[in-house]
Amino acid sequence: MLTIAVDAMGGDHAPECVVEGVVKALQESSNRFEIILIGQAEKVEPLLAAHDTASLNLRFMHAPEVVTMDDIPATAVKAKQDSSLVRGLQLCKAKQADAFVSAGNTGAQMAASLFVLGRLPGVLRPTIYAYFPRIQEGLTNIVDVGANVDCKPENLVQFAEMLTIYQRYGAGIEKPMTGLLNIGEEETKGSETLKQAYRLLKEADSKGKVNFIGNIEGHDILKGHATIVVCDGLVGNTILKFGESIPEFIGALLKQSLEQHLVSGQIDQNTAKLTSSMFKGMLEPFDVEKFGGVPFLGVDGISIVGHGRSSSRAIKNMIYMAEHMVEKKVNQHIAEVLAEE
Amino acid sequence: MLTIAVDAMGGDHAPECVVEGVVKALQESSNRFEIILIGQAEKVEPLLAAHDTASLNLRFMHAPEVVTMDDIPATAVKAKQDSSLVRGLQLCKAKQADAFVSAGNTGAQMAASLFVLGRLPGVLRPTIYAYFPRIQEGLTNIVDVGANVDCKPENLVQFAEMLTIYQRYGAGIEKPMTGLLNIGEEETKGSETLKQAYRLLKEADSKGKVNFIGNIEGHDILKGHATIVVCDGLVGNTILKFGESIPEFIGALLKQSLEQHLVSGQIDQNTAKLTSSMFKGMLEPFDVEKFGGVPFLGVDGISIVGHGRSSSRAIKNMIYMAEHMVEKKVNQHIAEVLAEE
Repeated sequence: MLTIAVDAMGGDHAPECVVEGVVKALQESSNRFEIILIGQAEKVEPLLAAHDTASLNLRFMHAPEVVTMDDIPATAVKAKQDSSLVRGLQLCKAKQADAFVSAGNTGAQMAASLFVLGRLPGVLRPTIYAYFPRIQEGLTNIVDVGANVDCKPENLVQFAEMLTIYQRYGAGIEKPMTGLLNIGEEETKGSETLKQAYRLLKEADSKGKVNFIGNIEGHDILKGHATIVVCDGLVGNTILKFGESIPEFIGALLKQSLEQHLVSGQIDQNTAKLTSSMFKGMLEPFDVEKFGGVPFLGVDGISIVGHGRSSSRAIKNMIYMAEHMVEKKVNQHIAEVLAEE
Repeated sequence: MLTIAVDAMGGDHAPECVVEGVVKALQESSNRFEIILIGQAEKVEPLLAAHDTASLNLRFMHAPEVVTMDDIPATAVKAKQDSSLVRGLQLCKAKQADAFVSAGNTGAQMAASLFVLGRLPGVLRPTIYAYFPRIQEGLTNIVDVGANVDCKPENLVQFAEMLTIYQRYGAGIEKPMTGLLNIGEEETKGSETLKQAYRLLKEADSKGKVNFIGNIEGHDILKGHATIVVCDGLVGNTILKFGESIPEFIGALLKQSLEQHLVSGQIDQNTAKLTSSMFKGMLEPFDVEKFGGVPFLGVDGISIVGHGRSSSRAIKNMIYMAEHMVEKKVNQHIAEVLAEE
């Protein structure tokens, strides 16, 4: 049976939401895996007391320290060895857990994962990706979304290779199409880094490591021309956060528009309500919680990174994602492919 | 009276739309300025023949060559000296025109503007910006959006300074707030280039050249936290094109949603039509044609760059933008401020 370590203290709504998410995951899956919940006893135990934990495959582990959103990633791991973050990753390192899940400080989790777990053989830099809705069926995956701000061409190529492996084994997409995000389609476009990345991606394509479709542009992301969009962490992080702000923006526009139409008598209250609810449903593809979180690709272990805003549903889905990563042996496949290079 | 040179051959719908736009601008403004329309006589003259050009303050100038979307920017200017693009810019250089307007190959227009007109004193690299809608009143301006893919810190600072001057004199915003686009708010975030740009922007702020509010992130763009968003051309170009694709994406989601609601009987045809039209109105802030185009900031002359998709209305508005740039003496102000450095 798999054992998944969960950071009780990570996320804007922790530990309440994390406790709820863990309980839901175990109930819904009929205790399919074991969960070790790690956090401050004085905060977590009273929350656990509200549930029938005796029926759950759940262990609690006390960790006195907490890594907060204000902690500096690079120093948090050394300064807070007794935090739920570091303890959880150490359980993975010691093979006492198969995966670790947190919705806390993303930068700190990445730094700690790298420090405690190390890299898979052949990996230059681990990376983190994000999902994006698209017009076509399926999802667009953008990599990197903030783990690596300055990237060399070979980093970009490895991001594509690792995400291709995840898509292939984790999502069942045999040949996910990879596009290089650039200012134009021609291979002569962009910075020297992008031109060189283009050449290396073509090489990787000829070796069957990626399915490279060439340069793509900003307007291709939502259209879904590529399943994997490769860019540096500054571009990816900006696009990700920009995308996340669209529902709020569209919602604000709708509110204004509905008010104007109500005042002018073009619509009645019922139509306004119907339109509002239709909108909410419509923007559901932007729901980042469906998957909960993403694996930090390239580290020698499974560390699932969640959004700070994570609800209990997101936490639950992150636990399932952790299980999925173990079962599909994604890391073994990454090590095999990248070690060849 | 001002003289504005217009490239008849630039844009996806040229020369038809350009001729229409020029005629509209002159009619609407009661011949407030003179227009020199430049293009291939065999294509443009028959279109002009459909209008009462005798009543318009319009001159036609033949240029046998055309710079197409496929021409490589760096070589087009030398290879096609007899194009409407190069001829139009040469009219500006020779002071026979006060401004030049085109909706053609943007890269070629920028290269040709730089080559023919040169830079204003003190300008390291000219730049191009774009408008963005926002929740708050007004517009967000992103700079650079593709003219400069690799940027040094001092380039980013100058982009902010030039756009601040444009906002101040051209748009009447005395102290437009400038944000540096980054992966986090803290000044320690991002690449070395961004950290150094942060320091230089603080210096520029202390000299009153910009009103720097610090780092901003992708989700701040539509919220409108900053009037000026500074980034390199790869990030800006990607965000711009991504943003332009939102209406189509939202439209596709709406179409699906309306169909489902119609099938399930939750709405009737009338409500569906009303909702559709409400949507179109709602997404009007994404209408890029309202302003037509933007000035290429930092060149020693006025070169207005338009979207390839430009309609006659966009062309008309670009002509007004050219007039505005001359009248507000934006270039003189840029030269004054940047020459100090």
